[in-house]
Amino acid sequence: MSGIVVQNIARADPEVVEGLGACGVATVHEAQGRTGLLASYMRPIYSGARLGASAVTISAPPGDNYMVHVAIEQLRDGDILVLAPTSPCEDGYFGDLLATSARARGCKGLVIDAGVRDVRDLAEMNFPVWSKRIFAQGTIKASLGSVNVPLVCAGAWIEPGDVIVADDDGVCAVKRADAASVLEKARAREANEADKRAKLASGVLGLDMYGFRQKLTDMGLKWI
Amino acid sequence: MSGIVVQNIARADPEVVEGLGACGVATVHEAQGRTGLLASYMRPIYSGARLGASAVTISAPPGDNYMVHVAIEQLRDGDILVLAPTSPCEDGYFGDLLATSARARGCKGLVIDAGVRDVRDLAEMNFPVWSKRIFAQGTIKASLGSVNVPLVCAGAWIEPGDVIVADDDGVCAVKRADAASVLEKARAREANEADKRAKLASGVLGLDMYGFRQKLTDMGLKWI
Amino acid sequence: MSGIVVQNIARADPEVVEGLGACGVATVHEAQGRTGLLASYMRPIYSGARLGASAVTISAPPGDNYMVHVAIEQLRDGDILVLAPTSPCEDGYFGDLLATSARARGCKGLVIDAGVRDVRDLAEMNFPVWSKRIFAQGTIKASLGSVNVPLVCAGAWIEPGDVIVADDDGVCAVKRADAASVLEKARAREANEADKRAKLASGVLGLDMYGFRQKLTDMGLKWI
Amino acid sequence: MSGIVVQNIARADPEVVEGLGACGVATVHEAQGRTGLLASYMRPIYSGARLGASAVTISAPPGDNYMVHVAIEQLRDGDILVLAPTSPCEDGYFGDLLATSARARGCKGLVIDAGVRDVRDLAEMNFPVWSKRIFAQGTIKASLGSVNVPLVCAGAWIEPGDVIVADDDGVCAVKRADAASVLEKARAREANEADKRAKLASGVLGLDMYGFRQKLTDMGLKWI
Amino acid sequence: MSGIVVQNIARADPEVVEGLGACGVATVHEAQGRTGLLASYMRPIYSGARLGASAVTISAPPGDNYMVHVAIEQLRDGDILVLAPTSPCEDGYFGDLLATSARARGCKGLVIDAGVRDVRDLAEMNFPVWSKRIFAQGTIKASLGSVNVPLVCAGAWIEPGDVIVADDDGVCAVKRADAASVLEKARAREANEADKRAKLASGVLGLDMYGFRQKLTDMGLKWI
Amino acid sequence: MSGIVVQNIARADPEVVEGLGACGVATVHEAQGRTGLLASYMRPIYSGARLGASAVTISAPPGDNYMVHVAIEQLRDGDILVLAPTSPCEDGYFGDLLATSARARGCKGLVIDAGVRDVRDLAEMNFPVWSKRIFAQGTIKASLGSVNVPLVCAGAWIEPGDVIVADDDGVCAVKRADAASVLEKARAREANEADKRAKLASGVLGLDMYGFRQKLTDMGLKWI
Repeated sequence: MSGIVVQNIARADPEVVEGLGACGVATVHEAQGRTGLLASYMRPIYSGARLGASAVTISAPPGDNYMVHVAIEQLRDGDILVLAPTSPCEDGYFGDLLATSARARGCKGLVIDAGVRDVRDLAEMNFPVWSKRIFAQGTIKASLGSVNVPLVCAGAWIEPGDVIVADDDGVCAVKRADAASVLEKARAREANEADKRAKLASGVLGLDMYGFRQKLTDMGLKWI
Repeated sequence: MSGIVVQNIARADPEVVEGLGACGVATVHEAQGRTGLLASYMRPIYSGARLGASAVTISAPPGDNYMVHVAIEQLRDGDILVLAPTSPCEDGYFGDLLATSARARGCKGLVIDAGVRDVRDLAEMNFPVWSKRIFAQGTIKASLGSVNVPLVCAGAWIEPGDVIVADDDGVCAVKRADAASVLEKARAREANEADKRAKLASGVLGLDMYGFRQKLTDMGLKWI
Repeated sequence: MSGIVVQNIARADPEVVEGLGACGVATVHEAQGRTGLLASYMRPIYSGARLGASAVTISAPPGDNYMVHVAIEQLRDGDILVLAPTSPCEDGYFGDLLATSARARGCKGLVIDAGVRDVRDLAEMNFPVWSKRIFAQGTIKASLGSVNVPLVCAGAWIEPGDVIVADDDGVCAVKRADAASVLEKARAREANEADKRAKLASGVLGLDMYGFRQKLTDMGLKWI
Repeated sequence: MSGIVVQNIARADPEVVEGLGACGVATVHEAQGRTGLLASYMRPIYSGARLGASAVTISAPPGDNYMVHVAIEQLRDGDILVLAPTSPCEDGYFGDLLATSARARGCKGLVIDAGVRDVRDLAEMNFPVWSKRIFAQGTIKASLGSVNVPLVCAGAWIEPGDVIVADDDGVCAVKRADAASVLEKARAREANEADKRAKLASGVLGLDMYGFRQKLTDMGLKWI
Repeated sequence: MSGIVVQNIARADPEVVEGLGACGVATVHEAQGRTGLLASYMRPIYSGARLGASAVTISAPPGDNYMVHVAIEQLRDGDILVLAPTSPCEDGYFGDLLATSARARGCKGLVIDAGVRDVRDLAEMNFPVWSKRIFAQGTIKASLGSVNVPLVCAGAWIEPGDVIVADDDGVCAVKRADAASVLEKARAREANEADKRAKLASGVLGLDMYGFRQKLTDMGLKWI
Repeated sequence: MSGIVVQNIARADPEVVEGLGACGVATVHEAQGRTGLLASYMRPIYSGARLGASAVTISAPPGDNYMVHVAIEQLRDGDILVLAPTSPCEDGYFGDLLATSARARGCKGLVIDAGVRDVRDLAEMNFPVWSKRIFAQGTIKASLGSVNVPLVCAGAWIEPGDVIVADDDGVCAVKRADAASVLEKARAREANEADKRAKLASGVLGLDMYGFRQKLTDMGLKWI
């Protein structure tokens, strides 16, 4: 099943992709019914990065980054690399040379359910990475994997061209076909939140604003 | 046993609480006989925060943050929310809207043996959180928990009104009744440390300053 | 086997040690045939530190930092302390007082397969530490360990006087006897990388630059 | 997206399902190109169980086993329940009462990326379970999930009706549509292995039997 | 705060203690409102042990089992040792010699939030242990701890004389004062379960037996 | 540094090796001054195995078991394979075919800081394995490693020909040159223990037998 490079994948509308990135992970995750979130061990290598991008996926053998080179050729402006090893691995598949090459093809970052290295250089380049580990142990180039096939990355099912939203809270995947409708719902949540934030900042309680007090009393909550 | 909100809890003297916060976690932990420390997996979402505050405790079902809204009403100036789920959970119970609401009631931060989200916003608000995880997965509002009951949070026994000291080293709880005496001991340690620091900086060895050399020789240590 | 302090250890040439530090962990690790790396759980307490230094090793009982005081006397300019507990432990063996004392003896930092505390103070001092945990729980002084004996630290075999290279990617140990030849290989890699980086930045693909396309085709990779 | 029960799912041919179970996890995993394996933390609650069965899937909220009751109605002879929580959870969703009910509907066992309890009773019933945890903490019945929807369980993508193969080595999922061809390949591997086993048992070396010696020499291996 | 041995602790009625043990961990945990459970990493060293016993608690320094000897003198018939280290530790505090000595004083087993060793001998003796680890690394005898003080063990708050219930599902603590009423509730649950089990075994669905079908429909569950 | 097979290694006297195995891990570990123990995550795949054997070591790339075939040729009667991957890995390097081949060469078992599979077959063969994981994920044969080189396995430094002692408590390595003297000390401990066991079984307290009572009182322990 490995040894395949799918070359022409569909992507979502770039404005939708950007829009989802601006909404952020927590909002998008809620907006699409609490699905698509990657495991909490996926952490950014530096704080403050935030993006929406289209997934170019890499299914790679453990400790072998041959397919990253293959995937870079498939990148277009606005893409992000999404790598999942075929068995658990924390080796550093990716460093500053690959980031330089990927950026030259329009790549916005990397999501990797394994390790990354050269993180100081990557931070200086402002090349964001969300990874399971930071680890200097490199990889070899000996076996085939696949590019642009569906895969499970950090517990989430991701297909090529799906939208990846990532920020300091983690990483969320949005199905390509759902991207526009999820963006609409995410923006509705945001509009809604601005108003709530102002009320809460003025001291109004959520208990009252959301009408929770009565419901909780009915459920049996006792103030003593 | 759940479904209870205790409304009027006792708190320690605000000056004592502030004083403990200024001493920091490591000093306070030593000063009270090495007790009260939360597990090392409790980490701040950003560096540099340091506080002393009175605990308003939340015992919450896994993945359900209904009780956070209830707890916010119980907050007073100088309090901190302390949440422990009733079974292991890493969901994000708390984000920027709740932080806005809590701050409007005088809340200084959050200690949570679970997840937190919107961490970029929380950092921009300077609302400090010590948590087990950063995770965008939200929660529901379906079940009762309790507010201001004793609980075990990250391995430490905490009662409402206990003093929470937190900084980059982690989190420590001080029994309310012991707060004043612990502060006294902590300050004594600090005074003592300034003097030691100056000597050590000048090149005096701890081996000599503390009289360890003879003791170690008696125990059998050999220099070869 | 414990209770020994070896006083006069050999160290590598200071210029070689500095040179290795400047190359960084990922490069040095590759240059010496992918050996010597410490486990990925060893993380810096703040970002941006980078060093090469000679190891003064400490084999310490769990929760007992008596030997740190002993080791400080053995430090010379350009050394780093390397501590491994004799059983798994996450206590904070080291804080700002010990850092002050160690620095006064020329110490450049600490690598510890256990916990560290006072991390805010250490960051303000620019005293770098790579550790398994940040934990305020202190230690006692009751039992003997050894100083400058070989040990396993975070999965790596380290002998006194070995060169420690550490940066944001982690920690790598280089055998003292191999230091000069590893430096030579590391510098060769670096020279080589500058050229590659320029080509990749201009949009040349690794697939072409390294001649991978033909090899992958021969291995059966299919572009579809 | 939750709140759905799909009632009539397709299943693979029962003889194929049984056949895959008899081949075992390691053989089936190899036979289908090293895909479909669940994470290594999925362990049997007792040794010696081995099965092939058709997946009835349960997507459940954390700490809420309402949907297990719903799923049991959907079971047919030769099925296995496969439960994944929508956020990480180790609560015990399943015990001996549910096992009694499931068995009455023809259920052969349970695969759960969470906790299980009453394991002594389950072992006495010979009701096999592969789980992430054994944990007595029970669950509530308050929220909806879904039954017979695709999900990610312990890192593997599983659709209702897929074949689950499980034994002491862990758990592997086979796509329903691929089941017959995977069985064929698995049996070919088995036939092949019997012959190899006999040769190896007689002292023939794999180095010689597989022709590795020459290849390794060509790659540069040196016997010294 | 350490260095204390409390000699005459109160215990629950032996018949109540035995009764709770017979009900098992899952039932007792439910019966007391889902409280008192120790973390899921506490596992028995062999399958099939089941007990109720009164806690003699040990707060011990990491890697130091001096206090186990002190605690053994405090044991009476029907007691169990409950050890929590004052900082995380996985050393083997306890082996077959200590088990021999404890049994001679009437001890029924050990619950330890650390390591245990000689597990083959302990299994042959039928001396049950629930521990965080099995680890041959022994301990020293150098520092004081305390016996029969309240402590947090594997996340649960336990006071001397509390009832410990343990079986293959894990460990649960029952407050001494609540023991009789919890037993009553646990037995009511058991009586209730026998009847349910028979119905479920006959093929009646929980959906119908508990009246869930209507409630789920009202909540919006859709069968498709 | 990889790509080497050392063919003629020295081994300890077979009677000494057997003798150490009979003493067991905990006793041997103590007898050699608490050194040589592998990490606690190394667990036997079935209970009850106990052995002493000479190490034939394998340094293997992650997910590549080519070198196991090479190592089997180096086995002699009474040896055990000891495999450490060059980066963290949990793949199943070893199954029943390799066990069949290894046994035909006199191999007594396997210690592996990675995964193993076919564990049901291995248990039926009585071929003992101590491993980090049980995992059905197999490996490839693409890269060179080395056989009979020194390595770090699960945190312990092991050289070819060192004695491996393993039982239900875990795994301990004894330096070949120290084997005879360690055996002597281990046997002395055992003789000593038989006598102590009898006294303790009769109800004599360790407090009295070892004279701890006075020492503890002097240290400040208070019975209240």
